Amino acid sequence: MTSYLITGASRGLGLAIATELAALPESEASIIFATTRQHNPGSLKDLAVSTSGRVVPVQLDPNDPESLSAAVKLVEDRLQGKGLDVLVNNAGTQPVTDGKVEMADDLTETFHVNVTLTHYVTRAFLPLLRKGEHKMISNISSTVGSIAQAPKYQMSPTHAYKVSKAAMNMLTIQYALQYADEGFSVFAISPGWLKTELGGSYADLPVEVGAKEVVRYIRSGGRDLNGRFLNIHVPGWENAPGPNQYDGKDVPW
Amino acid sequence: MTSYLITGASRGLGLAIATELAALPESEASIIFATTRQHNPGSLKDLAVSTSGRVVPVQLDPNDPESLSAAVKLVEDRLQGKGLDVLVNNAGTQPVTDGKVEMADDLTETFHVNVTLTHYVTRAFLPLLRKGEHKMISNISSTVGSIAQAPKYQMSPTHAYKVSKAAMNMLTIQYALQYADEGFSVFAISPGWLKTELGGSYADLPVEVGAKEVVRYIRSGGRDLNGRFLNIHVPGWENAPGPNQYDGKDVPW
Repeated sequence: MTSYLITGASRGLGLAIATELAALPESEASIIFATTRQHNPGSLKDLAVSTSGRVVPVQLDPNDPESLSAAVKLVEDRLQGKGLDVLVNNAGTQPVTDGKVEMADDLTETFHVNVTLTHYVTRAFLPLLRKGEHKMISNISSTVGSIAQAPKYQMSPTHAYKVSKAAMNMLTIQYALQYADEGFSVFAISPGWLKTELGGSYADLPVEVGAKEVVRYIRSGGRDLNGRFLNIHVPGWENAPGPNQYDGKDVPW
Repeated sequence: MTSYLITGASRGLGLAIATELAALPESEASIIFATTRQHNPGSLKDLAVSTSGRVVPVQLDPNDPESLSAAVKLVEDRLQGKGLDVLVNNAGTQPVTDGKVEMADDLTETFHVNVTLTHYVTRAFLPLLRKGEHKMISNISSTVGSIAQAPKYQMSPTHAYKVSKAAMNMLTIQYALQYADEGFSVFAISPGWLKTELGGSYADLPVEVGAKEVVRYIRSGGRDLNGRFLNIHVPGWENAPGPNQYDGKDVPW
């Protein structure tokens, strides 16, 4: 009887995670709030119908305080006095720069979307998460946000994204450290390079593979995940020759 | 005959670094551009006079494109066809949050000042740095920006600062990787917890100690510093019992 909220769920990884959770029996995933910036996109509407309402589309623009508090109110009402168990901060943007880092004109904007808005969502749902049984916050990060592994991803012209994900990792560990005594588990997870609109068609893995791995960590882990930066595990990819190895080991910061 | 430009030089560490460099013989530090957001603060005016003009105050608000290009023009004119050898990105802000991370309302603003404005300054001076002999960019970071060491600094309520410095470290390594083939040395350095307006009176070290160490690295290092996160070395502090050890070793990201 676990409740979930996934942000950025209109498409890509967010939609795939919602779909994955909705395929679990109701005893495992009782309700799945799926937030999107736009009101009720078609993709989610279908999922809400096919799951008989276990997937609940929620309009949420975290930049708009009214939208944010309305979303919290909606979730609170639907939970009928219970807490929210798991928050998956998936929403984000990955702009590409045409050229070297000096050409990047979107550092602040990308940071705002990927870090500050994640922060706004997290703190808005903290009171409901405190009442939850799992108190889990899973921040979707990326190995390209690993400063230690930056040489591996040197060729990727996603400068602002890299900077924002390193920053998000620091935000994640701040939450992990400061709410550990309340029983929270807060972690960053890299879902792999996935064939989505964000990842592009040359990506390594179908989106479902990444979604399944994120869900596996969320369902099998607990306090042991707090403060960590997780990598998915995909058999056969442990020692892949390209930049990405999906070995299930913690990613260095 | 090395030329330097230090940002945020009206006070604190920036002023101390300018003072330290100005104490070198002219054969070692021929000209020291000292930038400040306000026009010509008194502290710098004194230094400019006492150094017979080797310290050159430069008004620079990197948020204002006109101010930025005027500063570059001034520096270019004064260098009379030579390049700029060393850029020290010292300007920054360290707001304190009253409470846990959920109370932080300044993530984007702090990131903008500490990361994006550093980026604006760096790229604006890249053409002059390319013509320089040292091609060195020293970004003043902080060990509290080390994600790996976050548990040590858990009690410091400088959440936005920590996030911004982790992000600045990632920006630093992007520059280090992407301009290595042009001969650049780009690194992050933690100057220690210094008794300045930013550091406060409880800080570990007089500002001069940190300034001397930053100058020592800049003068003795070269390409070997590229892509690193340096810690100062202060004898007696290598195994200090508090959170800060000034052991001269690289800081983990």
